[in-house]
Amino acid sequence: MKIDELVELCSEIREFLIDKCSQNPGHVGSSLGVVELTVALHYVFNTPYDKLVWDVGHQAYAHKIITGRRDKFSTNRKYGGISGFPKMSESEYDAFGGGHASVSISAAFGMAIASKMNGENRNVIAVIGDGSMTGGLAFEGLNNAGYLKPNMLVVLNDNNIAIDKSVGAIGRYLLKISASRSYNKLKDKIWNFLGQNFFRNTLQKFFYFIKFIIINGNKFQRNNIFESLGFRYFGAFDGHDLPQLVETLEKLKNINGPKLLHVVTQKGKGFKPAEENQTDWHAPGKFNKNTGERIIVKSDKVQPLRYQDVFGKTIIELALANPKITGITPAMPTGCSLNLMMEEMPNRCFDVGIAEGHAVTFSAGLATMGLLPFCNIYSSFMQRAYDNIIHDVAIQKLNVVFCLDRSGLVGEDGSTHHGAYDLAYLRCIPNMIIASPMNETELRNMMFTAQLPNKGCFAIRYPKGGGVIADWQLPFSEIPIAKARTLREGNDIAILSIGHAGNNVEQAIDMLNDKNISIAHYDMRFVKPVDEELLHFIGKNFKQVITVENGTVVGGFGSAVSEFFALHNYMLQHKFLGIPDRFIQHGSIAQLEAECGFDPKGIAAAIVSMKNNM
Amino acid sequence: MKIDELVELCSEIREFLIDKCSQNPGHVGSSLGVVELTVALHYVFNTPYDKLVWDVGHQAYAHKIITGRRDKFSTNRKYGGISGFPKMSESEYDAFGGGHASVSISAAFGMAIASKMNGENRNVIAVIGDGSMTGGLAFEGLNNAGYLKPNMLVVLNDNNIAIDKSVGAIGRYLLKISASRSYNKLKDKIWNFLGQNFFRNTLQKFFYFIKFIIINGNKFQRNNIFESLGFRYFGAFDGHDLPQLVETLEKLKNINGPKLLHVVTQKGKGFKPAEENQTDWHAPGKFNKNTGERIIVKSDKVQPLRYQDVFGKTIIELALANPKITGITPAMPTGCSLNLMMEEMPNRCFDVGIAEGHAVTFSAGLATMGLLPFCNIYSSFMQRAYDNIIHDVAIQKLNVVFCLDRSGLVGEDGSTHHGAYDLAYLRCIPNMIIASPMNETELRNMMFTAQLPNKGCFAIRYPKGGGVIADWQLPFSEIPIAKARTLREGNDIAILSIGHAGNNVEQAIDMLNDKNISIAHYDMRFVKPVDEELLHFIGKNFKQVITVENGTVVGGFGSAVSEFFALHNYMLQHKFLGIPDRFIQHGSIAQLEAECGFDPKGIAAAIVSMKNNM
Repeated sequence: MKIDELVELCSEIREFLIDKCSQNPGHVGSSLGVVELTVALHYVFNTPYDKLVWDVGHQAYAHKIITGRRDKFSTNRKYGGISGFPKMSESEYDAFGGGHASVSISAAFGMAIASKMNGENRNVIAVIGDGSMTGGLAFEGLNNAGYLKPNMLVVLNDNNIAIDKSVGAIGRYLLKISASRSYNKLKDKIWNFLGQNFFRNTLQKFFYFIKFIIINGNKFQRNNIFESLGFRYFGAFDGHDLPQLVETLEKLKNINGPKLLHVVTQKGKGFKPAEENQTDWHAPGKFNKNTGERIIVKSDKVQPLRYQDVFGKTIIELALANPKITGITPAMPTGCSLNLMMEEMPNRCFDVGIAEGHAVTFSAGLATMGLLPFCNIYSSFMQRAYDNIIHDVAIQKLNVVFCLDRSGLVGEDGSTHHGAYDLAYLRCIPNMIIASPMNETELRNMMFTAQLPNKGCFAIRYPKGGGVIADWQLPFSEIPIAKARTLREGNDIAILSIGHAGNNVEQAIDMLNDKNISIAHYDMRFVKPVDEELLHFIGKNFKQVITVENGTVVGGFGSAVSEFFALHNYMLQHKFLGIPDRFIQHGSIAQLEAECGFDPKGIAAAIVSMKNNM
Repeated sequence: MKIDELVELCSEIREFLIDKCSQNPGHVGSSLGVVELTVALHYVFNTPYDKLVWDVGHQAYAHKIITGRRDKFSTNRKYGGISGFPKMSESEYDAFGGGHASVSISAAFGMAIASKMNGENRNVIAVIGDGSMTGGLAFEGLNNAGYLKPNMLVVLNDNNIAIDKSVGAIGRYLLKISASRSYNKLKDKIWNFLGQNFFRNTLQKFFYFIKFIIINGNKFQRNNIFESLGFRYFGAFDGHDLPQLVETLEKLKNINGPKLLHVVTQKGKGFKPAEENQTDWHAPGKFNKNTGERIIVKSDKVQPLRYQDVFGKTIIELALANPKITGITPAMPTGCSLNLMMEEMPNRCFDVGIAEGHAVTFSAGLATMGLLPFCNIYSSFMQRAYDNIIHDVAIQKLNVVFCLDRSGLVGEDGSTHHGAYDLAYLRCIPNMIIASPMNETELRNMMFTAQLPNKGCFAIRYPKGGGVIADWQLPFSEIPIAKARTLREGNDIAILSIGHAGNNVEQAIDMLNDKNISIAHYDMRFVKPVDEELLHFIGKNFKQVITVENGTVVGGFGSAVSEFFALHNYMLQHKFLGIPDRFIQHGSIAQLEAECGFDPKGIAAAIVSMKNNM
């Protein structure tokens, strides 16, 4: 292909992307931003022999389209369809799976070292956004690669935005160096000039510092943070100038050692509405590709609010009354609705960038000084702050409230994003309180309870999506720690549920109205400490119990119940409903709940089957 | 106090430290290196009102001694005595607890922000080593603090060594900038000069790049990586020059915003043997303070090798036969004995610096290319790589072997270092194999088994300290996955143990020889997948079971057994022995096992009590 044809290809891809994503929602903004980059990378490098690693990976739609998945692209993120992220099992062109941020440099560094050890000469390329660059893991990768200096290329895709606007010193710094392209050029000219004329000798002693930079700094480039870390820096280039990208990548291919290519791109490029409102168009849902209007499904029924908005509205109410409350999010203000509080009380909210570990330890620091941080992190991203929870918060019994949004199955984002493990990984930590609300009012009251004095390390996990009641904003009331709610009394089978999954249980019981099974249902509210009084009651009065959770059945809530029964010598038949011990792929939440067997139908079937086995 | 008196105080502290640590072992090397810094900080700042955060914290002995714990210092790290790390519960001078690396900047940043929000004007100081600076968390802290710019001071204690020699680009960079002190001075002179005379005007256009640096770079200092991140950089200073330290800190106290003071110190300073062999003297055990000879207790009995050395020797044997094997450690080559392989096969081993997350993702990258990484990380530090295990290894079913050294109770390092949670936090991850050896030969064979083809994500956890058999280096033999060992058959009570704790069980059973209790004992070997055949047998043939593990009883091995029994409707009395659901402090491993109730005596008592309750 000639360059002209490549430019034409880019338009086609862009059109295809807009068309497909308008009908089948996805991460259209970031993918539009890297069309030229994607085409240039595949043109210059010999993939899949050369290894191309996409950080996060939701910008990899163009990559998927030109590597054999164009025909399947309308199944993107659908149940049984292709994944919204690169996936090794899906294509040999996906050198490494994606989903979480800041991973690509470490992974690509591993490939570069392996290529060297294997005596091959593969090119290895990591493409990472400026947002992901705030994650410590990216720094760890740079630090190691810049030391051992294998052949690898990091492409820094700088659009100055993650989902919300990028924050952090590194982002500010990138802006500065992008602005200095003319400076870079002038610098080279001066150096050439200095090499030739009398100034060099005359001024040599006087401008000793210039010499220092020259000698030590690879022609001044140690000025640059990446050069300081042992990478050769090239940039900043226009990420939409395809001919220049191709030319630059061709050159870089022949330069040994670790290199960083800084390209400036525009998220949503080529589709006006997406260019103009990048946050909304990160993942806009369906839209009209001609008018650019987002299609929001309206219904006559009042839709219940999303749990995240209940969080967002409630924290403002609480913070108005309690001056100690602060809000912390690692780069997810819109995603977790902390943006509501940010607008009202900007000085009491902190978006710390993609840096979950730091978000938690920073919260711990705030708490040592008497503040009360509400640290809101998606459940699957909280895995990145696990040691911080243990080492910095729980051991020191600090008052930090963790709000784990997107707990349990999250739907279309799939295996990397399901918040499946939080109950298991938090439950083993001493000093933790772990709660989960079955509806909006419960969430509200759990947040209220968590901010009362000396509650210590308090985690509240709630799912993606909407609650169940319209009139949720009732006056606050304290929930006694470890106190469950009795929703139905019964004699045959006790169902213990935690969190929103309890609504599936209610529906299941309703479906069994005519079956003459006497079912008790308890909304446990707390996984830790568990309601021991209730469990003793159940141990004494039931022979059959079903636990239901939107989380792994290994080590989670059901496991807590079985530990309790074992410890206290209660002998019950126990069925564990929840996420089974395998990675669940993508699809709608309803489809995935059905696959896991804790949708209303699955729960009803489990009840009937247990009853029949009595 | 006058400066002279402070200098005198430093000598006294140093002498005291050497004297006490010679009898009661501790981290003497790093503490000797910061005596002057500690005294200067406490002299200049108004602690505890001003907040002083020690990263890791084993360098804080001098801090402890001058903040009221001189008298208790002989109890350092002993059961019931003071902790070897700062601890908020121990003293108001310990602004934040320590143990794990790279935490201090985030925590101090939290304090600085809180101080501002509270309308106070406290000074907040983080002291962090160059080793800790390779951790991504430190970068995340710098990135955030350099953006929001609260008043805070980071003291970078640069001794160019962690436990082993520091690695990474940042370390190399620090060496470079420390060497450039004269450059920094000259730079300032030039700037002053340029400000006054004709050169400035004449050369302005020509030396546009100088102007750029001047305007954008805080008097050239954007050259510096810390300045790039929004910190004002001061250094490098001699960290043992007390008068200069005091003068510098006094000046910095009055400068607003985030500042980084770079001091160069020598680990072990003032005690010749510790200066000369810094790795051995990181935590040298007892020594003769006059001769500098380390006192190694000798015994007539052949001492069993430490598990870590079994790892170190075995990986070499395996690697000789299997060219795919590589060794990875985050800054712990001596601690995990990978240094043995590093000597033999330096090209196949990687010390990636203090960067556990990166260590795991780097391993994942190697594995995608067909290599077989053995990634060795202490159990409590593996908490820092939790998401990397899930997201980068397990989801992708990559062949990575995780060796979790220091699993379970570790003794004197205390609550931050016990590897108590690994079984619980790993068990909930799909695709994992989790094994734990009861002795050296088992470890050896588990490592052999793990490197056989396509074993996937394979974790082996083993404790600190020595094994039990002298003649362990038998020919390799494969261990069938999920296959337990029957050690004793019996009828009354079945004991299921995992790992080295099984030896306590054996001793306990021996202690009960005369009690006429028929005890079966199974070494489970695998927590996941668990030996289902055996558990079915036990479910059918026993009424009483005791699980024993050197790990938390919440969600761990015992929990796996109770889940199995509940799921399959076996009704057994079940006693869980292991680490209870609270943070265990420091002391000898034997003392702590006794406290937790799974030392031989505790296990014997549990057996008798269970038998009596039949």
